[in-house]
Amino acid sequence: MYEHLLVTRDGDTVRITMNRPARRNSLSFDHLTELLAAFREAASGDATGIVLAGEGPVFSAGHDFGDVAERDLTGVRELLARCTDVMRAIQSAPQVVVARVHGLATAAGCQLVASCDLAVAGESAGFALPGGKGGWFCHTPAVPVARSVGRKRLMELVLTGDTVDAATALDWGLVNRVVPDGDLDDAVNALLVRATRGSRASKAIGKQTVYAQLDRPEVDAYAIALEVMASASQLPGAREGMAAFLEKRRPQWPD
Amino acid sequence: MYEHLLVTRDGDTVRITMNRPARRNSLSFDHLTELLAAFREAASGDATGIVLAGEGPVFSAGHDFGDVAERDLTGVRELLARCTDVMRAIQSAPQVVVARVHGLATAAGCQLVASCDLAVAGESAGFALPGGKGGWFCHTPAVPVARSVGRKRLMELVLTGDTVDAATALDWGLVNRVVPDGDLDDAVNALLVRATRGSRASKAIGKQTVYAQLDRPEVDAYAIALEVMASASQLPGAREGMAAFLEKRRPQWPD
Amino acid sequence: MYEHLLVTRDGDTVRITMNRPARRNSLSFDHLTELLAAFREAASGDATGIVLAGEGPVFSAGHDFGDVAERDLTGVRELLARCTDVMRAIQSAPQVVVARVHGLATAAGCQLVASCDLAVAGESAGFALPGGKGGWFCHTPAVPVARSVGRKRLMELVLTGDTVDAATALDWGLVNRVVPDGDLDDAVNALLVRATRGSRASKAIGKQTVYAQLDRPEVDAYAIALEVMASASQLPGAREGMAAFLEKRRPQWPD
Repeated sequence: MYEHLLVTRDGDTVRITMNRPARRNSLSFDHLTELLAAFREAASGDATGIVLAGEGPVFSAGHDFGDVAERDLTGVRELLARCTDVMRAIQSAPQVVVARVHGLATAAGCQLVASCDLAVAGESAGFALPGGKGGWFCHTPAVPVARSVGRKRLMELVLTGDTVDAATALDWGLVNRVVPDGDLDDAVNALLVRATRGSRASKAIGKQTVYAQLDRPEVDAYAIALEVMASASQLPGAREGMAAFLEKRRPQWPD
Repeated sequence: MYEHLLVTRDGDTVRITMNRPARRNSLSFDHLTELLAAFREAASGDATGIVLAGEGPVFSAGHDFGDVAERDLTGVRELLARCTDVMRAIQSAPQVVVARVHGLATAAGCQLVASCDLAVAGESAGFALPGGKGGWFCHTPAVPVARSVGRKRLMELVLTGDTVDAATALDWGLVNRVVPDGDLDDAVNALLVRATRGSRASKAIGKQTVYAQLDRPEVDAYAIALEVMASASQLPGAREGMAAFLEKRRPQWPD
Repeated sequence: MYEHLLVTRDGDTVRITMNRPARRNSLSFDHLTELLAAFREAASGDATGIVLAGEGPVFSAGHDFGDVAERDLTGVRELLARCTDVMRAIQSAPQVVVARVHGLATAAGCQLVASCDLAVAGESAGFALPGGKGGWFCHTPAVPVARSVGRKRLMELVLTGDTVDAATALDWGLVNRVVPDGDLDDAVNALLVRATRGSRASKAIGKQTVYAQLDRPEVDAYAIALEVMASASQLPGAREGMAAFLEKRRPQWPD
C-alpha cells in the first residue's frame, strides 16, 4: 500500500500514478522511496509494460522544495541518490516503461520523462528544466535530457528555464508521440501493445543492454552488444522466433 | 569473383551490390565474408568512393535465420564478429562510402545503412530493427543506429520493431537524402562527386579520425583530433590546398 | 587594448567582436591569442553574459592560411592548441556565451558557433566545414559540431564541405534561433535576458558541470552531476531560491 502512489494492474500492464496532486506530484524523499519500491515491485512481477502517469493538473513539478530546504549537504545527497535510483530502476526494469505526460513535467519531473524508455505526451504537456533560473541548477535532470535532445537545445532548457511545448519536445526527440489530451490513454496503450510484442525475456535483456552500450565509443559499445547478442541467440525466445520464421508459422513465445 | 556480390568499377567509384535477391540480401556468414573481402579490396585500391547497394526488392533483410538457427553460441559469436568486422571495414576504408537504399533495410541491413558514411534513400525505403518483436533483439544493429538517431527514437525502433519510412529516417538523421526511387542513382552520384572533392589522402585520414573521436568526452576527442590535424597540416594535400588558396589558383591534388 | 577585437560592455553583457573584416575574421595565432585573453578577462569580471560577434561580411572564415602555411608541425600544433584553448575558455566561463552569427561561419568559425553555449543566427548565416574539400580536413572543428548535430549530418558537412543555411542549422540543432538579420541584436539580447536570470554563481557551476558530464556513459555523468548538485544545494543562491518559492515572494539573488 502506497501513500503517494496509485498502483494498478490492467492486463499485462502495471500503471504507476503519482498521486500528490495538491503538491503537483513533487518528488519528496518519501514519494521517491515509494516510486522506487513500486518500480522494483513491478520489475519483479510478470507484467510486460509499465506506465508512469501523474494525477492532477501536472505530471510532476520535480523536487519538493519544502523537503529540500530543510536538508544539509548529506541530506540532499541522500535525496538525490534516491532520485537517481528511481531513474536507474526504470531503465533496469525488464518491462517496457512508457511515460504518460499531461501538463507540465518540470525539473526532476522532466528527468522522469527522459528516463522512461518511451514517452507519449498530450498536447497540453510542457517540459522545463527551470533550476537555472530558480537558484538550484538542474544538474541531474540535465543528464538524461542531454542524452535525448541535442547540446544546444539542452543548454537552452537549462539556461533559460523556459518551458517548451509538446510539439517542440517531439521535434527534439524527447517524446515519441503527441496526441490530443483526450486520446492519451489510447495512444499509450497502442504504443505499449506494439512495444511489448515478442519474447519477454529476449526484449528485457535487449532494453537493458541498450542502456549499457549508449554513450560509449562505438568500439566499446560493440564489445558489449556483440557478446550479449551471441548469448541471447541461445535463449528460448530467439530459438522459437527463428524456428517460427523458418517454418512460416506464428511463434509461441516461451516466456 | 564473388558468389553473393556484384562488384563493379565506374570511374572513381567502386559499386558493391548485394546480390542475393531470392534471400532478400540476408547476411549469411558467407555473404558477410564476401562483403568484408570486397570492402577491404576496394579500400586498398585507388577509388575515391564506394557505393553499397542491394539487388532485388529490398536493400537487406539482416541476418539469415537459416544460417543463425543452426549455430551454437560459439558459432553465433563468430557470425556476429564477422558482421561487426564489415561495419568497421566500412568506417576504416579511406574512401567515402554511401549507402544506396531502396526498399527495406532491416536489422543488420539497417545497421549497414547507419554504418556507411552517408546514405541516400529512395522514397520506397523503410528502416526497421525488428529483432525485439521477433525473439532475437537487435543488440548490435542498435549500436550505430543509436549513434545516428536520438535515444527515444532508438528505443521506439528496437522495442516496437515497426518500420519507419524514408521521410522519418531523414528527419531523424539516419539518412542524408530522400529522392524518388528513379532518381536514386543520380542522387548517389551527385552526392559522391561533392563528397570526394579534394585531396584523397587528407580526406581519408579525416574520415577515419572522425570515427575515432566520436562518442567520447570532448576533452578526449580534442586530444585525438588536435594531434591528427597538426600532423595532417604537413601532408602534400594540405600544403597544396593552402598554397592554391593563397595564390588564388585551382589546386592540383597530389594524390 | 586589442588589435583584432572590439570589446565593449553593455549593462551586464560583454560583447566580443572579431574585427578583422578585411581578413574575414580569420583566426590567426594573434587573433586567437586575443580571443583567449578577452574571454578570460570577461570570465573573471562581473558580467552575466558574453556575446561573440563578427564585424564585416562574415562571422569568421576559420583559420588564416597565410598564418598556417608558414608553420611546421610544431608551429601548427601550437596554433591548434591555442584555438582549442579558446573553445575551452568559452565553455569554462561562468557567463552565458551566445554566438551572434551573420554571414558565413566556416571551419574554426563554425567551431566557435558550436562551442558557444547558445547561438542565434541571422537568415543570411551559413555554416560549413570545408577543410575536407580544401586539402586540410576540419578535424578539430568536427569535435563540437559532431556533438551538436547527428553523425550523418556531421559526415555530410565534413565530406562535402558544402554550406548549410540557417534554417537547416536550426533543424539540426546547431543554433537556437534564426531571425531576420535586422533583428539579430534584439534576438540575442532577448535570449540573453532569459538565459541569465537567477543566481549567477549557481548558474555558472551549472553550465560548467553540464560540459563536464556530456558525452559520458550515463552512470559516469550521474556520478558527476549528483555530487555537484548536492553541494550546490547549499549555495546562497539555491537557499534563497527555495526560500523565496516557499514564502511566495520574489528572490533576492545574493550574487
